[in-house]
Amino acid sequence: MRRTSFAGMQCSIARTLEVVGEWWTMLIIRDAFSGVRRFDDFQRSLGIARNVLAGRLQTLVDHDILERRRYQERPDRFEYRLTPRGRDLYPVIVGLLGWGDRWATDSDPAPPVVLTHASCGHDVVPELTCPACHQAIAPQAMRWRYAEHVPTEHRLGHRGVATR
Amino acid sequence: MRRTSFAGMQCSIARTLEVVGEWWTMLIIRDAFSGVRRFDDFQRSLGIARNVLAGRLQTLVDHDILERRRYQERPDRFEYRLTPRGRDLYPVIVGLLGWGDRWATDSDPAPPVVLTHASCGHDVVPELTCPACHQAIAPQAMRWRYAEHVPTEHRLGHRGVATR
Repeated sequence: MRRTSFAGMQCSIARTLEVVGEWWTMLIIRDAFSGVRRFDDFQRSLGIARNVLAGRLQTLVDHDILERRRYQERPDRFEYRLTPRGRDLYPVIVGLLGWGDRWATDSDPAPPVVLTHASCGHDVVPELTCPACHQAIAPQAMRWRYAEHVPTEHRLGHRGVATR
Repeated sequence: MRRTSFAGMQCSIARTLEVVGEWWTMLIIRDAFSGVRRFDDFQRSLGIARNVLAGRLQTLVDHDILERRRYQERPDRFEYRLTPRGRDLYPVIVGLLGWGDRWATDSDPAPPVVLTHASCGHDVVPELTCPACHQAIAPQAMRWRYAEHVPTEHRLGHRGVATR
């Protein structure tokens, strides 16, 4: 079910999607953040075929997003835990969650999930802010440019395209 | 190429992926944020078949992520612009970009793209912070629960699954 490989694109977004761009993959990661660890629990949560789930989990282990740990011997039983590389996907999960809460809740009375920041105890919607001035980020206030080390022929979308 | 529909899941992440979970879709949105507006420019940037691109753009217009605007008459020419609903995907794009910069740059000397916060003039990596205490969010510090209005039978991953 793989499409064209994006790994060769000199773009961090394309390379991330190469690893985690598949839908079930993101929902497996969502479940892992919510505390799911065991094969049968992922399977119940996702309602996905066992062979498909096994393949997706293995891919995530191969990419060092999840690690497979034995938690019981005789019989051996394993669980799947997020690695540091996997945990670092949290901003993507929060971004998907926030957008869905704002734009895709259909007729629901309110977002289905409430997040709490344990450090301060408040129920919050995490926001994207600027580490220099600490203001919330508005997309219109952001500019981008290629770093100097990127060769012209690897610059995407810039063959005659005006940037903002 | 559609998989199982996630629209029925009472989960904002699944519902967002239902709209924007397809790889090309996210790269089209990436290009739109970088200033690409015209069909031929999307096509050059993505190297995607024209009929596939036309289908993806139409889907994004149908979902009110992009709007199609006429910018020239005789002959009519159109461009694609992000709607407010589309612009609100910026945190997801930044999340994907940041993860790729940290974990998927291969042997590159540095991230290929530099973001500048025009409001304050600094080159920054936007970060996820708590709007209550203004600290950076660590995934381990976040807890979640279902909102009270979510019926038990719609709670995913919670049939016997311990939460953290």
